[in-house]
Amino acid sequence: MSFNTFGRVFRITTWGESHGPGIGVVIDGCPPGISLRAEEIQTALDKRKPGTSKFVTQRKEPDTVKILSGVFEDDRTDGPRTTGAPISLMIDNVDQRSKDYDAIRDKYRPGHADITYDAKYGFRDYRGGGRSSARETALRVAAGVVAEKALAHVLHGAPTIRAFMVQMGPHKIDRARFDWSEVNKNPFWCPDALAAQRWEHELEAARKAGSSMGAVIEVVASGVPAGLGAPVYAKLDADLASAMMSINAVKAVEIGAGMEAAALTGEENADEIRMKNDHPHFLSNKAGGVLGGISSGQDIVVRFAVKPTSSILSPRRTITRTGEETEIVTKGRHDPCVGIRGVPVGAAMMALVLADHALLHRAQCS
Amino acid sequence: MSFNTFGRVFRITTWGESHGPGIGVVIDGCPPGISLRAEEIQTALDKRKPGTSKFVTQRKEPDTVKILSGVFEDDRTDGPRTTGAPISLMIDNVDQRSKDYDAIRDKYRPGHADITYDAKYGFRDYRGGGRSSARETALRVAAGVVAEKALAHVLHGAPTIRAFMVQMGPHKIDRARFDWSEVNKNPFWCPDALAAQRWEHELEAARKAGSSMGAVIEVVASGVPAGLGAPVYAKLDADLASAMMSINAVKAVEIGAGMEAAALTGEENADEIRMKNDHPHFLSNKAGGVLGGISSGQDIVVRFAVKPTSSILSPRRTITRTGEETEIVTKGRHDPCVGIRGVPVGAAMMALVLADHALLHRAQCS
Amino acid sequence: MSFNTFGRVFRITTWGESHGPGIGVVIDGCPPGISLRAEEIQTALDKRKPGTSKFVTQRKEPDTVKILSGVFEDDRTDGPRTTGAPISLMIDNVDQRSKDYDAIRDKYRPGHADITYDAKYGFRDYRGGGRSSARETALRVAAGVVAEKALAHVLHGAPTIRAFMVQMGPHKIDRARFDWSEVNKNPFWCPDALAAQRWEHELEAARKAGSSMGAVIEVVASGVPAGLGAPVYAKLDADLASAMMSINAVKAVEIGAGMEAAALTGEENADEIRMKNDHPHFLSNKAGGVLGGISSGQDIVVRFAVKPTSSILSPRRTITRTGEETEIVTKGRHDPCVGIRGVPVGAAMMALVLADHALLHRAQCS
Amino acid sequence: MSFNTFGRVFRITTWGESHGPGIGVVIDGCPPGISLRAEEIQTALDKRKPGTSKFVTQRKEPDTVKILSGVFEDDRTDGPRTTGAPISLMIDNVDQRSKDYDAIRDKYRPGHADITYDAKYGFRDYRGGGRSSARETALRVAAGVVAEKALAHVLHGAPTIRAFMVQMGPHKIDRARFDWSEVNKNPFWCPDALAAQRWEHELEAARKAGSSMGAVIEVVASGVPAGLGAPVYAKLDADLASAMMSINAVKAVEIGAGMEAAALTGEENADEIRMKNDHPHFLSNKAGGVLGGISSGQDIVVRFAVKPTSSILSPRRTITRTGEETEIVTKGRHDPCVGIRGVPVGAAMMALVLADHALLHRAQCS
Repeated sequence: MSFNTFGRVFRITTWGESHGPGIGVVIDGCPPGISLRAEEIQTALDKRKPGTSKFVTQRKEPDTVKILSGVFEDDRTDGPRTTGAPISLMIDNVDQRSKDYDAIRDKYRPGHADITYDAKYGFRDYRGGGRSSARETALRVAAGVVAEKALAHVLHGAPTIRAFMVQMGPHKIDRARFDWSEVNKNPFWCPDALAAQRWEHELEAARKAGSSMGAVIEVVASGVPAGLGAPVYAKLDADLASAMMSINAVKAVEIGAGMEAAALTGEENADEIRMKNDHPHFLSNKAGGVLGGISSGQDIVVRFAVKPTSSILSPRRTITRTGEETEIVTKGRHDPCVGIRGVPVGAAMMALVLADHALLHRAQCS
Repeated sequence: MSFNTFGRVFRITTWGESHGPGIGVVIDGCPPGISLRAEEIQTALDKRKPGTSKFVTQRKEPDTVKILSGVFEDDRTDGPRTTGAPISLMIDNVDQRSKDYDAIRDKYRPGHADITYDAKYGFRDYRGGGRSSARETALRVAAGVVAEKALAHVLHGAPTIRAFMVQMGPHKIDRARFDWSEVNKNPFWCPDALAAQRWEHELEAARKAGSSMGAVIEVVASGVPAGLGAPVYAKLDADLASAMMSINAVKAVEIGAGMEAAALTGEENADEIRMKNDHPHFLSNKAGGVLGGISSGQDIVVRFAVKPTSSILSPRRTITRTGEETEIVTKGRHDPCVGIRGVPVGAAMMALVLADHALLHRAQCS
Repeated sequence: MSFNTFGRVFRITTWGESHGPGIGVVIDGCPPGISLRAEEIQTALDKRKPGTSKFVTQRKEPDTVKILSGVFEDDRTDGPRTTGAPISLMIDNVDQRSKDYDAIRDKYRPGHADITYDAKYGFRDYRGGGRSSARETALRVAAGVVAEKALAHVLHGAPTIRAFMVQMGPHKIDRARFDWSEVNKNPFWCPDALAAQRWEHELEAARKAGSSMGAVIEVVASGVPAGLGAPVYAKLDADLASAMMSINAVKAVEIGAGMEAAALTGEENADEIRMKNDHPHFLSNKAGGVLGGISSGQDIVVRFAVKPTSSILSPRRTITRTGEETEIVTKGRHDPCVGIRGVPVGAAMMALVLADHALLHRAQCS
Repeated sequence: MSFNTFGRVFRITTWGESHGPGIGVVIDGCPPGISLRAEEIQTALDKRKPGTSKFVTQRKEPDTVKILSGVFEDDRTDGPRTTGAPISLMIDNVDQRSKDYDAIRDKYRPGHADITYDAKYGFRDYRGGGRSSARETALRVAAGVVAEKALAHVLHGAPTIRAFMVQMGPHKIDRARFDWSEVNKNPFWCPDALAAQRWEHELEAARKAGSSMGAVIEVVASGVPAGLGAPVYAKLDADLASAMMSINAVKAVEIGAGMEAAALTGEENADEIRMKNDHPHFLSNKAGGVLGGISSGQDIVVRFAVKPTSSILSPRRTITRTGEETEIVTKGRHDPCVGIRGVPVGAAMMALVLADHALLHRAQCS
């Protein structure tokens, strides 16, 4: 029911605007006894933080995370452990450049939530997008670290969750060149080295032109046991769809074959089953690891499309709050491809959904 | 938290298996005083019911709905009205052909939930798919009628919700031939008369070959006011994504430009705004009517891909419950394109999400 | 968020009015594989059903329960088992005497929900109290049977849940005469044989005078392990308080020493701890088995007060729907002490809360 | 489902331990446009803060509250306003005396949650009670201020919520001497000046003896319109029972006549109705303002019993974590009557429940 809460048992509630004193997340339902240090969360945040390349916003946020509750170091435990109480994480906002928000205050940026927030709430916190800012996603990455640890704890072994970009603008990777080891070698988390080179040129051109590009992100979870998820409205894929669509700028979510599934014949779509090492072994994975809303033991494969950043330098026609027609140019430190920052966020959402369902499964079926 | 409940304020809980005594839905949170007759729900069910053409399963279910609670005819009201109490609807299962379920009982049908239900619960109700049967979606259509009436009540005027098929197998409609009046003239709810003809041939061929085809459904809600939806995890599009992905056989959900959004430039993607009749008027609708998770007043446009029916006559490799490798042929009365029946279900889910958010909005912002 | 749902993981949703076609409950979240037969539920219903003595309403309801979903008899299981899908139970309403509801329709019965339902919903189903009828509690008793079985399944052994009456009108039992074996020997579930005799006289006198009496019920759960419950808002005692207060006519809930705790000194109130058979052993149980919202392993002790039935034969001053002052006499088949029927309902609510928390505990801490 | 969240639409999630860096609350669902300043919350906190008399713990916490999100001062609004986004409040912990927690770490304090937390979580944050500390209730008082403002906003006028102590130890007030103006004149929020004097002596004696006393608090909300609350499991009184029972040390909750209702006859218990100023006027209020779970327009009257503080100087028998029998004396800065601090907390919980139900009512019935 909550507006700002995600999850069923392992639940996160986020708060904060991009230009207030800080942002934070409260994680409720985490099992006790899990080793957790702020440094582990920091490492994940550092990877996604702004300012790491010319392709992400140059806003300089140290994004230093603090653990405010829920973790305690008893001398009977080997380092700090979760206690079962809510874990509160906070990140201070420090680089709040006192720039002029007049354009945003009075004009609606096309493709932004400016106009809908005003329609809903009567007014809005217009500083940096307020609550609609993608800065909120830093908290998902932070909570995702806790979720991954909880998941490993519950499953007695961690699934591997990997996210990467498979398309930038109209340019897709070539799956034949897919190489896991490339993912961390380029600023796009791209598994295809050649594609990454091309994207770099394309994005640089877009950036210089004051334009922006969209992207498609894929998240794969390997090693998830069969049985997570639940009919009918708590399907694992339904929760993943909600999780990914809740990320800023996402316009589509696919599981397995996704939109392509519509074009397959029944024969092509059927993932046939054999035995291998005494376990069921699927000969293909059109299903993306989910059958009837429940994990099958195969890789869970989710893709989502991120629209191009709405903040561009080309003047666009728009209106003011009072209904006057005008034009707008959105200056400021914006990502030419907001999808880049969506990569770790997608991985985090996968971890959050899986941790939640691992706990849910334990509740009903352990 | 519920497994079988959908919604935040306007909530539905469904129950039942395809081969038990019946199936039902409890609708909680419906406003009082809304005129409601079983015949209205029946009309909607009749439209989607099996056996209406050779392209949907020949199982003969009268699908007669009964209202068991929550509606009362006081002589001070003009006909039966909702009372604010839970509305319980039930449909008896009557055509339970005593066919042999041995194949399903002991072998896993590729692409079905057989293997995952067994993995999760240890055993399952294998009759007709049990709880994983698409028969559950009849209840969504029934509840959708109540949701549409609630929505009209709350908004003082009903949005128009229309669903139609835009792709069958690999064959898309031609948007240039789009004609609303065609939608009800063919068995596919197809707005392109020529495409409908072609699909009929294709599907007939697939049916005869014992094969099956996928589909893409589009749902459009017109006349929804700006302001429905909520940041951050109760976004209207996140809830729509969950709603559509929870429908059987759905593998992808798109809002507005959807997957295509990734290929657009920032300029192309920006829906510019002008004034028209004293209201904001968008010059395009790449956003699909949702900005920052909140409706913009434009048409809300959702698409979802349905995979081809898994039950096909071609033998597929599979395993038994006890891990022996074998083959399976799924006989029985199955839809060659389960997407056809997904059309009214998609419309119903749109109504449910909008009714829920209309109530939610009223709670926080009225 | 639901209005008609109780529970967090093990959830029940009830529907139905006293004079519609029937009433029902959907149980969601029950673990799979639990043996369940309608007869087991019927036995519990029969115990609480109306018409069993002159002290409960003479309305003749057979109260025959049907299991409509969620239970399946596979030939690999020893009798019918829960499948993990929602369990739908229904009881037909059969004795709907066509009596005149004009008095209730137009006049507000003092102490009833007539006036508040009208205030909230604008009108109401006035037949037999509609949704406010205590008939709804039959469903709690039915669901309580499933909860008890789930609890035994999860805890690998069933706690003993016993409910009994400790006060009728102003007359309390004498704890010195407490005898478990008496509880089932009198129509009041009274553990004090002498008190039961006295109550019989008192209640007979009240009944003849067209009056009614209140009662206090105690529910004790023995054998509940330490660790169920959770801070801060999911405390076991907070959930029990909500559970018991949601029963019709209940005006107070006590845990352990209850209201009396206020009058104790810190020394008196402290339940000192020793060891016994290698387990913590409390020397008293002022806490009622709950410390910090979590079970301690001691007996969980809850009491609740039920007000006297509001439907009495003495004329009372009231108003009509249209605001005219008048008098009312409530005829009909009413219980002179509605608390009697509250005894099994209290036990059922204890089972529901414990089953829910057993699952919740398993989710976070197993 | 959340462990640390309270409410249905207007929801609070609290976090923090008594001896970590701070404690906080996230308020979700608050309507936008409500004037809110930190000073208003501070004023409420100052009233309940420790150290204000010798009868409350001498721990010196300035309890300075910060608003971290959800409030924005647009120059178009008259001062800071809620935006509809989550409101995050935080209070730093500053007086964390480095005292020796060895006793608490290894010995279980009788009447405390020490033993149950260990049983549930395997270990616990033993500093000052950790998550079980009553310090959490400061956040309820803070959130209660926001709830009261939201309530006034939604109802277009604020109900009056007043809390006071009606019993300390075995000593009740004399209702004949009830005087609202006395409530703020003594350290007990006691409406009976003579009782307050007596309590002062009694409590001083208890304090000197290292003992403690219980209390009964009454909370009255006047001016609440008829119609708030909902059948069956979202009853206003069921939510109030859960709210009050979730406060530390509370062992009983009464609505209206409460436990006494059991001893009344049907005639005595019926609150007769007349008309007054064109509105229904009840001649008594045994119901405590709630009929069928819905407010009647009368004063809503709730009472709860608080047990005596468990931390006393008299040695008590207990065990250690490892099961050795021992004795314990709880030193430290503890309240001799923790009920005193429960008074504003009870008022806050009333405000939270009413605000939540005002929003809920608006959702379904506005």
